[in-house]
Amino acid sequence: MALVTRFTQMFGVRHPIALAPMGGSAGGELAAAVSRGGGLPWGVGFLCWAAEVAAVEQALEYGPAAVMLSFGDPAPFVGPVRDAGAAVIVQVTDLAEARRAVAVGADVIVAQGTESGGHGARRGRSTLPFVPVVADLAAPVPVLAAGGIADGRGVAAALALGAEGALIGTRFQATAEALADPAAVESIVRGSGQDTERNSVLDIARESPWPRTYTARTLGHPYLDRWRGREAELAADPGARAEYRADVARGAVPALPVWAGEAVDLVTDVPRAADLVGALAAQAEEALGRAGRTGKG
Amino acid sequence: MALVTRFTQMFGVRHPIALAPMGGSAGGELAAAVSRGGGLPWGVGFLCWAAEVAAVEQALEYGPAAVMLSFGDPAPFVGPVRDAGAAVIVQVTDLAEARRAVAVGADVIVAQGTESGGHGARRGRSTLPFVPVVADLAAPVPVLAAGGIADGRGVAAALALGAEGALIGTRFQATAEALADPAAVESIVRGSGQDTERNSVLDIARESPWPRTYTARTLGHPYLDRWRGREAELAADPGARAEYRADVARGAVPALPVWAGEAVDLVTDVPRAADLVGALAAQAEEALGRAGRTGKG
Repeated sequence: MALVTRFTQMFGVRHPIALAPMGGSAGGELAAAVSRGGGLPWGVGFLCWAAEVAAVEQALEYGPAAVMLSFGDPAPFVGPVRDAGAAVIVQVTDLAEARRAVAVGADVIVAQGTESGGHGARRGRSTLPFVPVVADLAAPVPVLAAGGIADGRGVAAALALGAEGALIGTRFQATAEALADPAAVESIVRGSGQDTERNSVLDIARESPWPRTYTARTLGHPYLDRWRGREAELAADPGARAEYRADVARGAVPALPVWAGEAVDLVTDVPRAADLVGALAAQAEEALGRAGRTGKG
Repeated sequence: MALVTRFTQMFGVRHPIALAPMGGSAGGELAAAVSRGGGLPWGVGFLCWAAEVAAVEQALEYGPAAVMLSFGDPAPFVGPVRDAGAAVIVQVTDLAEARRAVAVGADVIVAQGTESGGHGARRGRSTLPFVPVVADLAAPVPVLAAGGIADGRGVAAALALGAEGALIGTRFQATAEALADPAAVESIVRGSGQDTERNSVLDIARESPWPRTYTARTLGHPYLDRWRGREAELAADPGARAEYRADVARGAVPALPVWAGEAVDLVTDVPRAADLVGALAAQAEEALGRAGRTGKG
C-alpha cells in the first residue's frame, strides 16, 4: 500500500514526494533516482527574478514533466510551460504570492516555510502555520509543503496540514546521487538546525545577484561570524569581498555556502535517493497510522 | 471515538490538547472550559527566570494537576511540584533545554517553536522540524508541540511529528471565556501571521523585566514601526519610555501588546472554549484519516 493524494494521482507517481530544485546538487542522476523511487518525475526549476523566457523555452524542449517557478513574478513563464504540456508548479512564500499563483493558473503550489535550506523570503513564514492557510486559499489547486521536512514524520505532518505532498531539499543533498561537495554533505550529516541561520551575508560576500529581499539559510561560516548584522557595510566594502575571493581561492573558506534547512538534525546518513523516497513514504504512512489511533476516549 | 495518545492516557483526558499558560487571558474560567471540553485539567505556569520556590509552593496548595515551567532553569521547582503530586511539564526552545528537561525528570516536555505568540527564545526553532528532534531526544518522555497550532490540522500535524498532543495559546485567546481585552480579540480574529513579528521593542518600551534572551511575537504596534532594529537605543532612552507610558495613559496605544502566534490567520471566530476543544480534536482526527488514505500505489 502507499499514501494516495491528489498530487500522486495528478502525476501518476507512487509517493507524495518531490525533489527540490537545487542548483549544484540536484542533477540528472539525483532527479532520476527520486523518480525511480516513486517521487515526482524530473522537472526544471527557475528563479523568476533571473530567468528569461527563452531559457525556459529551451529547457522545455527536453520534455520535463514539470517546471517550478520561484521567487518573483511567474506570469511571463506560465504560457510557454503550459503550451509545452508541462505542469506549472509555483513556489510561494507569503499569502500575496499564493494569491498570484492561483491567479496565473498554477497546477501545483509549493508553500515554502522559512525553515527551508537555501534561499527564501527575507521575512518568511513557518511551514506548520503557513501550509493550512495556503491550502485553504488555493483549493482546489493542490499544495506541496516545503521547508523543515527531512523524515517521514515531516511528510506525514505536511499531509495532515492539508498539503498533498512534500517538496524536500536538504535531506536529498545527503544522498549517494547528489552532486554536493563531500565536505558539504558531511557538514549536513553532522549539523543541527540550531547551527543554521538566514541572512544575506554570504550572498553579498560572494557577489551573488540574489535580490536582498531573499535571504539564504546556511550552516555556520566564518564570514557569518565576521559580518552578521553588518550586511550594508559588507556590501559597501569591495576590499572585504576581495578578501572573500582570496579566502576561497586559498581554501580557507568553502567555495560555496552549505545551504541547509532547519531539519538538518534529522539527516544522519547518506542513503541512495530511491531507497530514501521509499523509506520516507513508509515512515510517513506509519506516522499517520500511529497518530490516528483512536479509542473510546 | 477520540484520538488516543500517551498524553491522553497519562492525564486521563479525552483529547490531546492543552491550554497554554497565558498571563492576562488564561484565567480560571478558560482553564475550566478547556478541561470540561476534554483538554488538560487546570495547571499553573511559571517563568523560571522570575519565579520563586515559595510562590510555586503557594500555587501547589490549590492542587493543580500540572505545573508548567518555562524560560530558564526548571531545576529548583521540580522537587516541590513532584512532592505535591502534580505533573512536571517543562517547556523547551532548543536542544540543550530539552536535554536539561529530561535530566531534571520532566513528566512532559513542551517543544515550543518560534511561531508561537508571546515570549520565546530570541533565536528560536520552528515547530515542524523541532518537534521530531525533541521527541527522539526525550523518548519515552511524552512531548507536546507548541507554536503555530490553531486548528485541527495543526493538532494532527503535531501528532504526526511524534508529539503526544498540542499546547495551544493564541487560538484560545479568541474564545468566550478568555480574559483578553475585546480589542485584542478583534485584532486576533482579523490578523494574519504576516502581521506578527518577534522582538524586544515592546518589552523595553513597557519596562518589562523579561530578559533580552527572550523576544515576544505580537501583532503590529506603532512602537514596533518606530523602534524596530533600534532596541538598544530605546533601552537607553528614558524619555521614549516615558512617552510610551503617556501614550498608554491617553489611549493612543493599547495597554498591552497583542501577543499572537503565526497561526493567527486560522483564528476567525470567538467560540466557547469547550466547543473549540472538541472541534479541534474532531478536525484532527478527520485530517489524519484523510492524510493517511492509501491505495495500491
